[in-house]
Amino acid sequence: MRIAVFAGDGIGPEVTAEAVRVLEALQIDGLELVEGDVGGAAYRKHGHPLPAATLEIARSSDAILFGAVGDFSLDHLERALRPEQAVLGLRKELGLFANLRPATVFKGLEDLSTLRPEVAGKIDLLIVRELNGDVYFGEKGTRTLEDGRRQGWDMMSYAEDEVRRIAHAGFKAAQGRCGKLCSVDKANVLETSQLWRDVVIEVSAEYPDVELTHMYVDNAAMQLVKNPGAFDVIVTGNLFGDILSDQASMCVGSIGLLASASLAEGTFGLYEPIHGSAPDIAGKGLANPMATILSAAMLLRHSFGLEAEAARIEAAVAAALADGIKGGDLGGSAGTKEIGDAVLARL
Amino acid sequence: MRIAVFAGDGIGPEVTAEAVRVLEALQIDGLELVEGDVGGAAYRKHGHPLPAATLEIARSSDAILFGAVGDFSLDHLERALRPEQAVLGLRKELGLFANLRPATVFKGLEDLSTLRPEVAGKIDLLIVRELNGDVYFGEKGTRTLEDGRRQGWDMMSYAEDEVRRIAHAGFKAAQGRCGKLCSVDKANVLETSQLWRDVVIEVSAEYPDVELTHMYVDNAAMQLVKNPGAFDVIVTGNLFGDILSDQASMCVGSIGLLASASLAEGTFGLYEPIHGSAPDIAGKGLANPMATILSAAMLLRHSFGLEAEAARIEAAVAAALADGIKGGDLGGSAGTKEIGDAVLARL
Ligand SMILES: CC(C)[C@H](C(=O)O)[C@@H](O)C(=O)O
Ligand SMILES: CC(C)[C@H](C(=O)O)[C@@H](O)C(=O)O
Repeated sequence: MRIAVFAGDGIGPEVTAEAVRVLEALQIDGLELVEGDVGGAAYRKHGHPLPAATLEIARSSDAILFGAVGDFSLDHLERALRPEQAVLGLRKELGLFANLRPATVFKGLEDLSTLRPEVAGKIDLLIVRELNGDVYFGEKGTRTLEDGRRQGWDMMSYAEDEVRRIAHAGFKAAQGRCGKLCSVDKANVLETSQLWRDVVIEVSAEYPDVELTHMYVDNAAMQLVKNPGAFDVIVTGNLFGDILSDQASMCVGSIGLLASASLAEGTFGLYEPIHGSAPDIAGKGLANPMATILSAAMLLRHSFGLEAEAARIEAAVAAALADGIKGGDLGGSAGTKEIGDAVLARL
Repeated sequence: MRIAVFAGDGIGPEVTAEAVRVLEALQIDGLELVEGDVGGAAYRKHGHPLPAATLEIARSSDAILFGAVGDFSLDHLERALRPEQAVLGLRKELGLFANLRPATVFKGLEDLSTLRPEVAGKIDLLIVRELNGDVYFGEKGTRTLEDGRRQGWDMMSYAEDEVRRIAHAGFKAAQGRCGKLCSVDKANVLETSQLWRDVVIEVSAEYPDVELTHMYVDNAAMQLVKNPGAFDVIVTGNLFGDILSDQASMCVGSIGLLASASLAEGTFGLYEPIHGSAPDIAGKGLANPMATILSAAMLLRHSFGLEAEAARIEAAVAAALADGIKGGDLGGSAGTKEIGDAVLARL
């Protein structure tokens, strides 16, 4: 059981260090951790945000614990060299096609949401976002048209097998929850979405126990504000998933607590907090490591089937929160190490 | 001054009728109203959601007052014949490239939002959405790949002149408000967005009095939940604008009050409520016509420069609201005609 630890930029190293302490404290037999460079940090050392050596470490591992990447001071670089490309590169190279983004309000933390507590308190949804296709990975470029005008272009597309495998992921997730799947698309405008919808309907025949609905993305963005508690599982494409999963996270209010998994076929996966590299507080010991610690729990569960250990971590985090151990992002004053210590003490 | 009145489907005719009564009550010299069929209603009569005769009426008019289109019972039709295509057709045929979507919370109605009143109460923003380009109007189709798989595809693109004219619209709108423009894109992934950003920056040189910022669309979806009051004007492309403008509307909470304008170069424009055809309450006299009445006010202001008349309508609506005249959507019990009467009485 080999875990690649890619801490990345900004607060990435600080929060990852706490998650590593938690993993080590569990003393799981045969667990091995290997570090690698990604993002802006990797660019500065090796000239590339996703060096071949890092990819090699990823490939020879069974799961990745990821911190965060992003560094505004590298914004001038051509896109292929910017820190975020490490994320896109790992997703594509490792076939991480299913992004699971749970958004749930922790009991007692309803007040952190800008939504009314009675609305926020009901949020318990999972967004299953496709991560290997769509306009993200199609051909793209800038060209000069015949009349001399510059044009930027990106090809959006989905092939049926790409939709089928993420649809299965969505239906399976719904089976493990409340049995409701909402597929989000823009089939009134996009052919990509029409194919998406057709294939999701085909796949639904295999899941008679799941109630399938369809929603246009603009309406989904409205319903996430109006009544987010009505959603169970949402399955959607890469671009719409990017937008809606971030919107849903903010509806929860405590993005310092939200973990995510990006899964390949089989058990391989990359696990990361949904927050970014937060350069403004980096290196100050202020970042809340809970989302990364919870990502480590997801890792143990999904990639290694270590349900008991995952639950232990989650219970320890919940206990720390219940005892009032909160980072600045949650309105508290606990620092990175202090929160790590608190979780360790409650394992 | 010729206004084409396209009432459309569902509650469209009911709400439009009240707006027409308001327009007529103003007894504006030389104002002429001409009706035309659009949407599902037009499809049933003429076999097309946007018949040539309707387009002709639009072309020979100076502005369009639009109700709503949409009819689930026509969902089985090929996309080109579905009601919503009337909207896309009018936008393209008439060059309606700038969609203005104000989102403001009416004083005293903060409680209608699912956002906390202190957050909702600060919402006063305008989304300027490009309406003639992007993945909406690019080439698209479904094809069978060499290996036999079906694939749906849509070309996303923007040319520099398309970005330039909507950027100007955004900067001008910001000049007329608080002088802050936020351009939303996904330049970390899309070449279309990179060109968008480059051109917006070029255009900004002509507006030194406007403070320009850039935001990725996923972050914008978060900030609209976290602190919508921080936005003044948002300018964005067709697809992102579709999602964000609906999200922003729902943050306001009272979509039965929100009007919109879709403007061409010059003074021509189409004005419509942002709500849909609401087939569930159609024909029952329950729909709130205020958003359509406010759309008529926008029409008088933007297309005819009749600022005083526009302000009279807006003041009458505000007065009716202040007097507690509220439709079911706002938690009241006033019907369509009753609300129309109340506004007329306060003109
Ligand atoms: C960094 C960026 C390319 C990425 C994305 O758009 O997928 C991020 O926003 C995310 O959601 O992980
Ligand atoms: C009906 C649909 C094609 C349209 C759009 O996506 O533009 C609608 O959602 C809107 O925003 O006016």
